Amino acid sequence: MKIGILTIGNELTSGRTQDTNSSFIARQLNIHGWQISVMMSVGDDGEAIKVAIDHELSLSDAVIITGGLGPTADDITTAAIAGAFGLKLYTDESALAHIKDRFDRLHLEWTANNVKQAVFPEGAETIRNPAGMALGFFLRRNGKVIVVMPGVPSEAQKMLPEGVIPVLKREFNEAVVHVESRTVKLFGIPEARVDQMLSDIDFNGLGVSIGFYPNFPEIQIALTARCTAEHEAREKVKRAEEQVTDRLRPYIFAYDQETLEGLVAGLLIEKKLTLALAESCTGGLIADRLTDIPGSSAFFERGVIAYSNRSKTDILGVPQDVIDTFGAVSERVAGLMAEGVRTLGKTDLGMATTGIAGPTGGTEGKPVGTVYVALADGKNIRCRHYAFRWDRRRIKSISSQVALMMLKKYLTGEREDG
Amino acid sequence: MKIGILTIGNELTSGRTQDTNSSFIARQLNIHGWQISVMMSVGDDGEAIKVAIDHELSLSDAVIITGGLGPTADDITTAAIAGAFGLKLYTDESALAHIKDRFDRLHLEWTANNVKQAVFPEGAETIRNPAGMALGFFLRRNGKVIVVMPGVPSEAQKMLPEGVIPVLKREFNEAVVHVESRTVKLFGIPEARVDQMLSDIDFNGLGVSIGFYPNFPEIQIALTARCTAEHEAREKVKRAEEQVTDRLRPYIFAYDQETLEGLVAGLLIEKKLTLALAESCTGGLIADRLTDIPGSSAFFERGVIAYSNRSKTDILGVPQDVIDTFGAVSERVAGLMAEGVRTLGKTDLGMATTGIAGPTGGTEGKPVGTVYVALADGKNIRCRHYAFRWDRRRIKSISSQVALMMLKKYLTGEREDG
Repeated sequence: MKIGILTIGNELTSGRTQDTNSSFIARQLNIHGWQISVMMSVGDDGEAIKVAIDHELSLSDAVIITGGLGPTADDITTAAIAGAFGLKLYTDESALAHIKDRFDRLHLEWTANNVKQAVFPEGAETIRNPAGMALGFFLRRNGKVIVVMPGVPSEAQKMLPEGVIPVLKREFNEAVVHVESRTVKLFGIPEARVDQMLSDIDFNGLGVSIGFYPNFPEIQIALTARCTAEHEAREKVKRAEEQVTDRLRPYIFAYDQETLEGLVAGLLIEKKLTLALAESCTGGLIADRLTDIPGSSAFFERGVIAYSNRSKTDILGVPQDVIDTFGAVSERVAGLMAEGVRTLGKTDLGMATTGIAGPTGGTEGKPVGTVYVALADGKNIRCRHYAFRWDRRRIKSISSQVALMMLKKYLTGEREDG
Repeated sequence: MKIGILTIGNELTSGRTQDTNSSFIARQLNIHGWQISVMMSVGDDGEAIKVAIDHELSLSDAVIITGGLGPTADDITTAAIAGAFGLKLYTDESALAHIKDRFDRLHLEWTANNVKQAVFPEGAETIRNPAGMALGFFLRRNGKVIVVMPGVPSEAQKMLPEGVIPVLKREFNEAVVHVESRTVKLFGIPEARVDQMLSDIDFNGLGVSIGFYPNFPEIQIALTARCTAEHEAREKVKRAEEQVTDRLRPYIFAYDQETLEGLVAGLLIEKKLTLALAESCTGGLIADRLTDIPGSSAFFERGVIAYSNRSKTDILGVPQDVIDTFGAVSERVAGLMAEGVRTLGKTDLGMATTGIAGPTGGTEGKPVGTVYVALADGKNIRCRHYAFRWDRRRIKSISSQVALMMLKKYLTGEREDG
């Protein structure tokens, strides 16, 4: 089955917004064994939308459209589609009631233009939006299917697997192909080196496709097999994963939907250990990541963002003369900050970062990107030095990553130098 | 002049690689006052490429194509284009000499398939590649122009301004069109309400196009005018901006590339005021945002992420009996946290958040999304209560936004209830 993708919005054709929906949709459809005939983007223009849909339908069994379903004047997708097929528009009363109810529950002020989000071309069937207001819908035309989703990526990314793919499977009565996919998450190795280390694996021979997705500071590898028999697909992916793991073990930290902060949080909760943080160069980012995890208050006692030297001395107890002698960005100070915040919070573990995030503040001996990360457990203090490059935000990001990696390795008993 | 963009590659239609060339090219062309007719992506497939080019040419004066110019077997763009127009291929000897010379200089091993990069359709004129091996080229067909560039983003991004835009200007002898654009950033108002409040403005009459771009928790409005005279475009955008500002003034917090944290940081530095933060429900996110701004150490003294009750009492000095009486999530505790961290940090300002980010921990009186934000300046403590919805991450995000908004209004002397 061939599927076309059409994304709609002036923000795309003006280059203001990077279209991320097309590539997300293509990836998901590929996983289900469907091919992409063509991907197109046009502006919020009725005639351009009509011409694009005609072209896509001439090449495809189904077309997936995103964007232009909101309440504002430039949201014209529904009207354009109705126009393209000569269909009248109708207001779906149950959809309208649903939207009004949502407004009530969220205490939002109702404005008349929101009615637009309950208007559909006749013959359309609605698709529930698991993450927002605007419903999706689909239409059948001459044995083909046109699906329309909102353009907001977080909404499209939920509606596609939950609402759209089931519709496509049902409408085309597809022979069930089982798709097994496994994502391996790596940190601490460049993409080109990953490619090189895997170059001798015969993925075709294993019946598995491989994709690389760098997502700073991580690299994700996706292994996918498509088979009629579920166990066969699973077996193929498992064999490929074993070979990948063989070569890249020290760099693998998570699989599939797991996140580094989620794993660390899970380990701390499981081991009933508490944590306090003393962040300097990461500026609260480690705490922000850990507190994104529901239930983090079970292990996270407090954080101190010790930006000034005085904050390092007066609450963390780092002696002023140590700062004077070694500098605030030093192994010694990082260790004392970790132990200091551990004592202050009466926690099992204390973790600290200190470094130079830039763009200024670097010296010859300690250039921008110099970072120390320390972990104290009451018996020992381990500390590592890093020399990063990149810009301020990425130095913060990768510093929070190495800190969480150090915690994870401590909690699982892995060797720290891995 | 209307221009179509076509990107070619199986890595795009499989979703493995995000197409960044299209949006880069669109942005550059828009700046030159040219409109994008359509953006398309197809795989490395001769027939699909031909069909896409035909479609693009039917809608455009020129088509810009990237991808598939490399030496490997799946690089078929040149041959597909020659096939589409019934043109023979020829080897350009000077291009071949140039490529061989480059191999010599870089000490690369010459392989026969590299000859492919010196092969062009008859009638093509080559375009120098400032950043790589494969040359670009362009063809004239029936008064239209087809331009072909390599797909490697770093190469396309150099060749477009240096080689392609000059070709388009020359071939179409274009009158220079000036494009003026202004982005207005709003917070605290739903998108539908923005639309409604602007509905009586005649943007067409003003010669300005308007776009809405929600970017949680902000909404961005882009006003754009295209005119031959620069001052005319600027004048039109200015008049539209005045009318927008008239209606939405209380919700506007920034323009163009400005960020809320950047503005707050700039104001604190300008006024030589220092800040300490006591974050509970935002978990370090306010500090993370402020420390993303270079130079933030000038005003940011420290932050305390007071996740446990004990951390609220022992370093911020919130009395235990106040927590017992009012609860940790209360106006009283937020105010004492703000004043407590201000005293601790000896700063001019202290800011605090306390709330329930969920998904659990809510009660009937204080449901998930209950958030208090407080600001202390040594004389007064201002505190606001919010009742948010959404998920944990978005509650953290919008809480950090309202806190930074409160700071900004305090620093600019705007009324807090705006």
